Amino acid sequence: MISFENDYTTGAHPKLLERLSETNLEALSGYGSDSYCENACKKIRIACSCPDADILFLTGGTQTNSIIISSLLKEYEGVLSAQTGHVNTHEAGAIESTGHKVLSLPHMEGKIQSDLLDQYLQQFYQDANHEHMVFPGMLYISHPTEYGTLYSKKELTDLYRICQYYQIPLFIDGARLGYGLMSRNTDVTLSDLAALCDVFYIGGTKVGALCGEAVVFPKHNMPEHFLTMVKRRGALLAKGRLLGIQFDTLFTDNLYFEISRHAIDMALQLKDIFKENKIPFYLESPTNQQFVILENNQMEKLQKNIRFSFWEKVDENHTVVRFVTSWSTTQEDLRVLAQALMQI
Amino acid sequence: MISFENDYTTGAHPKLLERLSETNLEALSGYGSDSYCENACKKIRIACSCPDADILFLTGGTQTNSIIISSLLKEYEGVLSAQTGHVNTHEAGAIESTGHKVLSLPHMEGKIQSDLLDQYLQQFYQDANHEHMVFPGMLYISHPTEYGTLYSKKELTDLYRICQYYQIPLFIDGARLGYGLMSRNTDVTLSDLAALCDVFYIGGTKVGALCGEAVVFPKHNMPEHFLTMVKRRGALLAKGRLLGIQFDTLFTDNLYFEISRHAIDMALQLKDIFKENKIPFYLESPTNQQFVILENNQMEKLQKNIRFSFWEKVDENHTVVRFVTSWSTTQEDLRVLAQALMQI
Amino acid sequence: MISFENDYTTGAHPKLLERLSETNLEALSGYGSDSYCENACKKIRIACSCPDADILFLTGGTQTNSIIISSLLKEYEGVLSAQTGHVNTHEAGAIESTGHKVLSLPHMEGKIQSDLLDQYLQQFYQDANHEHMVFPGMLYISHPTEYGTLYSKKELTDLYRICQYYQIPLFIDGARLGYGLMSRNTDVTLSDLAALCDVFYIGGTKVGALCGEAVVFPKHNMPEHFLTMVKRRGALLAKGRLLGIQFDTLFTDNLYFEISRHAIDMALQLKDIFKENKIPFYLESPTNQQFVILENNQMEKLQKNIRFSFWEKVDENHTVVRFVTSWSTTQEDLRVLAQALMQI
Amino acid sequence: MISFENDYTTGAHPKLLERLSETNLEALSGYGSDSYCENACKKIRIACSCPDADILFLTGGTQTNSIIISSLLKEYEGVLSAQTGHVNTHEAGAIESTGHKVLSLPHMEGKIQSDLLDQYLQQFYQDANHEHMVFPGMLYISHPTEYGTLYSKKELTDLYRICQYYQIPLFIDGARLGYGLMSRNTDVTLSDLAALCDVFYIGGTKVGALCGEAVVFPKHNMPEHFLTMVKRRGALLAKGRLLGIQFDTLFTDNLYFEISRHAIDMALQLKDIFKENKIPFYLESPTNQQFVILENNQMEKLQKNIRFSFWEKVDENHTVVRFVTSWSTTQEDLRVLAQALMQI
Repeated sequence: MISFENDYTTGAHPKLLERLSETNLEALSGYGSDSYCENACKKIRIACSCPDADILFLTGGTQTNSIIISSLLKEYEGVLSAQTGHVNTHEAGAIESTGHKVLSLPHMEGKIQSDLLDQYLQQFYQDANHEHMVFPGMLYISHPTEYGTLYSKKELTDLYRICQYYQIPLFIDGARLGYGLMSRNTDVTLSDLAALCDVFYIGGTKVGALCGEAVVFPKHNMPEHFLTMVKRRGALLAKGRLLGIQFDTLFTDNLYFEISRHAIDMALQLKDIFKENKIPFYLESPTNQQFVILENNQMEKLQKNIRFSFWEKVDENHTVVRFVTSWSTTQEDLRVLAQALMQI
Repeated sequence: MISFENDYTTGAHPKLLERLSETNLEALSGYGSDSYCENACKKIRIACSCPDADILFLTGGTQTNSIIISSLLKEYEGVLSAQTGHVNTHEAGAIESTGHKVLSLPHMEGKIQSDLLDQYLQQFYQDANHEHMVFPGMLYISHPTEYGTLYSKKELTDLYRICQYYQIPLFIDGARLGYGLMSRNTDVTLSDLAALCDVFYIGGTKVGALCGEAVVFPKHNMPEHFLTMVKRRGALLAKGRLLGIQFDTLFTDNLYFEISRHAIDMALQLKDIFKENKIPFYLESPTNQQFVILENNQMEKLQKNIRFSFWEKVDENHTVVRFVTSWSTTQEDLRVLAQALMQI
Repeated sequence: MISFENDYTTGAHPKLLERLSETNLEALSGYGSDSYCENACKKIRIACSCPDADILFLTGGTQTNSIIISSLLKEYEGVLSAQTGHVNTHEAGAIESTGHKVLSLPHMEGKIQSDLLDQYLQQFYQDANHEHMVFPGMLYISHPTEYGTLYSKKELTDLYRICQYYQIPLFIDGARLGYGLMSRNTDVTLSDLAALCDVFYIGGTKVGALCGEAVVFPKHNMPEHFLTMVKRRGALLAKGRLLGIQFDTLFTDNLYFEISRHAIDMALQLKDIFKENKIPFYLESPTNQQFVILENNQMEKLQKNIRFSFWEKVDENHTVVRFVTSWSTTQEDLRVLAQALMQI
Repeated sequence: MISFENDYTTGAHPKLLERLSETNLEALSGYGSDSYCENACKKIRIACSCPDADILFLTGGTQTNSIIISSLLKEYEGVLSAQTGHVNTHEAGAIESTGHKVLSLPHMEGKIQSDLLDQYLQQFYQDANHEHMVFPGMLYISHPTEYGTLYSKKELTDLYRICQYYQIPLFIDGARLGYGLMSRNTDVTLSDLAALCDVFYIGGTKVGALCGEAVVFPKHNMPEHFLTMVKRRGALLAKGRLLGIQFDTLFTDNLYFEISRHAIDMALQLKDIFKENKIPFYLESPTNQQFVILENNQMEKLQKNIRFSFWEKVDENHTVVRFVTSWSTTQEDLRVLAQALMQI
């Protein structure tokens, strides 16, 4: 069945598998110390315009979020996140398992507004009892957000300035970063992003890799003995080559960006198909996740031929559902969808 | 350079890569709920003679150890391990990071002796102050051990009987399980092992996979909501297919056992080469890890042509070093080593 | 200066100090195994009409909350609390430090409404992704709440029925329990409370003791090896007598209830004084904490002679402040306050 | 029955109870911010010759150990302790509950030898795999040790020099510090101790207080927001006065030292009584804990009239037992013991 369920239903971009095969018999040292990891780091540093960046590869998003957050927070601190942030909702308490509270802030289509952040921090330090409370020790945002929305360069700049004023790091979850960078509606480049935060990651799992996320500390600011903390959390792959070779390939000849642009192209066509069929959008997303509102009977009919995700109920008769494109979405997939939509 | 450094220097057995490519475009559901994971489980159940076994795939050894141990221990319990156990030495405190103490026992070539275990448990409960102490809540052993040694069926039976008497689970770390099962000097089959413990894992990373360990609860005794605990520890791969396809392939046509037997064959030839060169063994290992004692000047000469691991100093002039074979070790590798040894 | 700042500004009820002195030279066994602890338990069991209750004494509220919650939750569970619950706001992340999330619910004057609880639980289990989320494993409520309000017997019954339906324990934080029980506006007795939850504690620190909270598992349902978990959290006093003697005294001749009734009497007079002075109430509290709204200039004048707590800003010119009575509040204190109020 | 079971069988020194009563009605601010806490700090600073020391009061030993250790260690570090150290044996895993491993070292009558410490640290950093291991991040010693033995000034100096070389803090557990300082066989003063470590605590619970330990950071080196970390661990008493008043009294007119000296005097007489009765000592202890070897039948007879502690079995027929003196041990107690010993 045609699937728009998410961006990790198919395997890896074929070039990654090819390179894994080609290099398979080379004897490489373990734990990320091989030449492919090294090359991948070099290429990512160039792509980010961060010659001094410290980079390390991890396997998946929840793992990456919890390791970064727990490594940077002090014992008495928690992490600020939008109420809808992945770390606050769909990570089964991974952050809390490291002993830290997620301090949730109201959101606007998945985004944190800088004035609300500022207000929270100001009030915290004004509270006479704040020493009995969890200190806000870090800001977590996702770009694109869980709703596919994007921060503008101005918004990132404002958030970062506040973080710097209160001396807390800004961490950007880039599980779907490629789709944000290749959106037609963004003024944020990879170099901008690297300049406007303290740590971020370049998502591989959802952007064409079998697995893998590249953690970037853009200002040579990786915490001391980060590798040991990664090991301690059970996240250090013996065959680090699996991640190194994939990211080396993704950052060769712009593959990462091409994959992402393809998914965006497919998403734009997807939007047109919905518009043609008068299916209303739940919100305006400029990336590869599209949220539309279906009547329940439409939804049930469509599910017979197409896979997509339930998001939330609107009312008795309407439901928000999500359609996602990826590197492997084809014109044929879109054609089948268009046809199916006409019949509901 | 020829490498006997460990069993994870090369990539994956080619059949695994082939299958990953062949299945690459199939749209599969995520998080281990795909048909390949399901098939792999079925085949492993048969291989273990455990029709009711609960099985789940994880990525690496330290991750697997810490998730199994923390999921089975009660808050006030610790895990018993040989002092040389991987969880006690080379996991950067992963077990303690989950709040549990590793209670170390003396070892004999990496193995725990049942009478010492019995004595420890007896004394613990006799101690009037034991409510102020960490309760021994689980036994961890590795098979093969960190020294390549193996438990006999009798020894496993004795350990398991004691665990059952004290009502604590027995967990067998099988990071290199294949090499134990295919050793010429074992009376323990995979079915025996599954019958003589409460949980174990079948190591993939060190036995021909890119990554992956198959956790087996042989008696349909996986803890409730184990998947959520895996997610919480950041160990649930979105593209669970990466593990499912590899294990499905490893357990098709006996590939897992063939890979392991090959490495054992190579190890036996390796032993002969050392014997021919009058290199003394540190201990008698019946598996793919061989420990020999080199004079320091021999070691330095050899290092110029061959990669192997430092293990520990014997005295000023002698060192224990480790040579490891794997699925990818070739006759040519052995020939080069034999030649190099003749010249030191 | 006269203080209505809180209910722990003075020491202990004099009878407690007397008994500590009288028994001082008796050689008693440690860690809560002495005869005074035993007697206190017996008396509390009678007061609760729970002949089988398991009881243990701890030192303070945050300690008690985090030990009870972490001991009862499974690894993958979090605790449901009103957003205003003490565990969610003023315990510096004590719950999260044990690895568990506080799942916050909307509140109504500090109370959780049963229909909202029901709805939360229902939706959780309906969510297809709930295995990627923190399971609600316990309900935490405080009685009186942080706003001095009380649950009715009907409300407690409704909450408890829902908890039982979803098989999660109901835990009642009774840091100020005495004031709830002695309120003129309650239909909940100590026996009712014990019958309508799985665990609760009888606060001593805020009700006339130097320190101490009596944890009651009313249905002989204390978790196995709870003492070891208490020790592990650093909460087991060597001189357990300090707690046993105080609670033995508090539950002799109804002292606990008399202390509480006195504070309630004082609070009722306090309310009258505010009413006479036309000071508006922020909400209607039937217990020893009273919340009133002062104009900022009134507040500043009053602070010169009287100590009370800032609660929150209403607007530019108005502030919510809290006045608290206790065992040691005197008619003279009230007289001074009345006089001070007339002058602002 | 006469008890030499430990140093916390009786209540508090009467002067402490007196002062608690005298100050009982004073309205004081909470959480350790009252004037008695402040005065106690001032007096302790003088007693330690550390005008800049940061001081905070906690309730008991295990609590204090786990808070200090977890607050000072980095995430990837563990604490070095003698195998017999309290943190490694009788704290129910309190250190591990904070996520940190106790790295145990061999001991000599409870003490760590500086050359073994040096060797451990040297080897750790030489190990090529040390990034996969728990970093030694702190040294924990107890003075007196769990065996009543004492470090000499030279020994402390050597240990501290090694710690400083490796840049890890030295923490001294002073649960029975007074008895160490007042021993006839020590050259270590309180000022020496404060100069030769990074943090220590002055035990109250075992030296005449109802409860309480004074944590001293002698070089104005308390970690930032330590109070919040104390709160987070449930260790911040609302009525901090309970600790402040006791320590203020203990450090007025040398009471702490007098209490300790009395117990040492009693211990010396106790030793004489054992010698007169030809009871052999297990080891030579210069403090208030005395370890002797009894024949089992002697032990059983003696237990009928005297309370003391079982320590460990020597062989089938002999047992090591412990006798402890305290502030409340009397000449009459010793007389009864002498008489009982003559009859076994």
